Amino acid sequence: MQLQEIASLLGCEITSSNTQITGMNTLKDASASEISFIANSKYIKEIQTTKAAAVIINAALVEHLPQGCVALVVEHPYWSMAELSKYFAPSIEELNAAPAIIGEGSNISPKVELAKGSVIGKNCTILAHVYVGANTRIGDNTIIYPNVTIYRDSVIGNDCRIHAGAVIGGDGFGFASNKRGEHKKIYQNGNVVIEDDVEIGNNTTIDRAVFGSTIIKKGARLDNLIQVGHNCEIGEYAVAAAQSGFAGSSIIGRSNVFGAQSGVSGHLKIAPFNTFAARTGVTKNVEVSGKTFAGFPFMDHKLWLKIQAKLARLVKQ
Amino acid sequence: MQLQEIASLLGCEITSSNTQITGMNTLKDASASEISFIANSKYIKEIQTTKAAAVIINAALVEHLPQGCVALVVEHPYWSMAELSKYFAPSIEELNAAPAIIGEGSNISPKVELAKGSVIGKNCTILAHVYVGANTRIGDNTIIYPNVTIYRDSVIGNDCRIHAGAVIGGDGFGFASNKRGEHKKIYQNGNVVIEDDVEIGNNTTIDRAVFGSTIIKKGARLDNLIQVGHNCEIGEYAVAAAQSGFAGSSIIGRSNVFGAQSGVSGHLKIAPFNTFAARTGVTKNVEVSGKTFAGFPFMDHKLWLKIQAKLARLVKQ
Amino acid sequence: MQLQEIASLLGCEITSSNTQITGMNTLKDASASEISFIANSKYIKEIQTTKAAAVIINAALVEHLPQGCVALVVEHPYWSMAELSKYFAPSIEELNAAPAIIGEGSNISPKVELAKGSVIGKNCTILAHVYVGANTRIGDNTIIYPNVTIYRDSVIGNDCRIHAGAVIGGDGFGFASNKRGEHKKIYQNGNVVIEDDVEIGNNTTIDRAVFGSTIIKKGARLDNLIQVGHNCEIGEYAVAAAQSGFAGSSIIGRSNVFGAQSGVSGHLKIAPFNTFAARTGVTKNVEVSGKTFAGFPFMDHKLWLKIQAKLARLVKQ
Repeated sequence: MQLQEIASLLGCEITSSNTQITGMNTLKDASASEISFIANSKYIKEIQTTKAAAVIINAALVEHLPQGCVALVVEHPYWSMAELSKYFAPSIEELNAAPAIIGEGSNISPKVELAKGSVIGKNCTILAHVYVGANTRIGDNTIIYPNVTIYRDSVIGNDCRIHAGAVIGGDGFGFASNKRGEHKKIYQNGNVVIEDDVEIGNNTTIDRAVFGSTIIKKGARLDNLIQVGHNCEIGEYAVAAAQSGFAGSSIIGRSNVFGAQSGVSGHLKIAPFNTFAARTGVTKNVEVSGKTFAGFPFMDHKLWLKIQAKLARLVKQ
Repeated sequence: MQLQEIASLLGCEITSSNTQITGMNTLKDASASEISFIANSKYIKEIQTTKAAAVIINAALVEHLPQGCVALVVEHPYWSMAELSKYFAPSIEELNAAPAIIGEGSNISPKVELAKGSVIGKNCTILAHVYVGANTRIGDNTIIYPNVTIYRDSVIGNDCRIHAGAVIGGDGFGFASNKRGEHKKIYQNGNVVIEDDVEIGNNTTIDRAVFGSTIIKKGARLDNLIQVGHNCEIGEYAVAAAQSGFAGSSIIGRSNVFGAQSGVSGHLKIAPFNTFAARTGVTKNVEVSGKTFAGFPFMDHKLWLKIQAKLARLVKQ
Repeated sequence: MQLQEIASLLGCEITSSNTQITGMNTLKDASASEISFIANSKYIKEIQTTKAAAVIINAALVEHLPQGCVALVVEHPYWSMAELSKYFAPSIEELNAAPAIIGEGSNISPKVELAKGSVIGKNCTILAHVYVGANTRIGDNTIIYPNVTIYRDSVIGNDCRIHAGAVIGGDGFGFASNKRGEHKKIYQNGNVVIEDDVEIGNNTTIDRAVFGSTIIKKGARLDNLIQVGHNCEIGEYAVAAAQSGFAGSSIIGRSNVFGAQSGVSGHLKIAPFNTFAARTGVTKNVEVSGKTFAGFPFMDHKLWLKIQAKLARLVKQ
């Protein structure tokens, strides 16, 4: 898509340009053929070093753009970004892609839907009623249980087990809203990457990234009915018990353990090797390791126990 | 079904009647060809104005019935209502209905089960392993992702996206219980109506109404793994993040925003344009707008923050 | 598998033995042809009376073994147990089993996958996209809604309703971990037993036992999006509302009622006929009956209400 065309779509005037735009991305990650946006002034530092070909931006912030980066000036950058995202969304199917390739020794039920462009490794088992979307890649020795849905462009490693009803790569929860409370979908044009030796529980949902990838790293163990939001990264050997949830863009360090029904807010970083009791609600970055937390808002586990004891005494007075 | 026959089923004596009964409903909504019930004396005012042909009722309350309304006197009205609900339950399939009708430009996977009597609009996409129950109606431009189940009689609008594994119109959680703790199913004979431009997340469940409809209004956005109980109404442009839950019969006003893992008790009314932080547990009606709430039981968000700070200090003393 | 062979696999030396081992089990439940393990000294009393043919054990505990019980001495018994569990895991399919048997009057959609060795009773309905695993037995008059997955060896009674997207018998969440935080899967070689007249909600997940059975007893009612961990027992006529969760090995007595989003920790026993308000987190055994609880950690419901009121006053001072 030509930059010129994009400017017209968004109703911006730009100096004529025939730059070819291949996608959208964050200020930090955008390449010279991508468009970015700034919708929140807290990202202002990231404007100055962005490599994006153009940025969807408010008039007030234009002065911060680096030289050569085209300003697409709009009133509501987030809304305009949402509008544009549609044009970069891939189709659901890839009718012109090559037929799926299935590795030696793999056993795929005839009741599986295997979309074009997908590549399945060796010695995999894929059971009935699974849907494998376009351009999905699955490694060797991986088992996909019945009724799993894998959206297009997902990458799944070797020796994984994806249990029944799990959904890999569904759309992240993204939209812009206006003052009347109406919403415009932000198309989720990234994907999900699941590394080797990962186990995903029944009916767990792992959303695709808006840009880039949601990543479940090597050896992670996710129980049933867990939600992993778009652009999360679940660290190596991390463990989460049933019904826990990870809001978008949180980075969970290696070997963290989350009890059942726990939750992590969005855009947080959790250092490795901590434990979070059942129902913990993590609301801030965790920079230490080797600790146990509990409560909501979360705190040291022992402190939480003390507070509960104190409360019980309070009421008996 | 004749009223006479119903009386026999429930073991009541009535003056001979050949009134034809077409269904069951609440006291408030019952028409002159429907039966209602009163199982809780707090609904006593609604008896007096009911249009129901007959009411399943305790002997003690019969005097409140309006003239012409037949009393079906039983010892345990709720249990008897449950017993009767079975006779008004439609069959799972409609073998005599017309074959499904599919609008122009719609793309339905051959691995979809499209029950008789269903009508699909134009330019829809329905992916593999979806089940579309009898008499379902789907509008134009709607996308149904893999492994979605749509129970019979559901109505889905234009421009909707129902993500993988979602269940639309499953039975609400209804039963009568006796003193021994045994249960009798209340058949859920209503349906689900989803209006235009609604997005439903992966593995989210929206229960059909016991009578009437569970309604998801125009522009609403429901994330993954959400529960919407029977007879709820989710307002226009309302937003709910992952793993939140709405107990039966709650009415959520326009543009409310619910954080992840939040919950709303049954039979509540929430005024429009409020925000509920993650994990909020809403236990009472909300009559104000423009506020932010948190905690369980819920309170003003700032008050909740104060309490949390106070608790932390308490324990340090 | 010969005991000798198992010893070699685990790198233990034993006096030559040709005892044939048929499976693994807990110290308490192991038969004379099974192997057990002790990974936690709190089970030391159970060693003395175990009937197991052999026990995977630390050198320090060997002296407690009863006479005739073979010691398989390893450094990390839990890890070795996990390693061994793989060898007793049944294959996903039973290609040599008899074709499925379907009782009179049952209606099975051609879009169902019915694995070998399964037996379906009379007058059942099984809708499209259901997967019924090997050697599953289903009673009479049971309805299985679309997109349900039933893993192998499950047993389902008469007059049950399993709603759309539910997963019965998925792997429990079991693994051993080493000091580097890496995990080794404990194969879940037990099953799920669902007795008569049980209703299971949409997208609810009930995990198979690691050894023995996870049991849902007669008349129980589970709502949507509920998690039941491996080796739980849900009592007769027990009720759980949506999004509640039961961690592994908890025994829930008859007619308990759990509100939405409640949770029960692992290895607990709950006496019959109690009520747990929404969001209750049960952290200890309950030995009384007829009570109502709330809060997390849980307490008497009235006490919880008092504490909430006190907190609100505290902050207003």
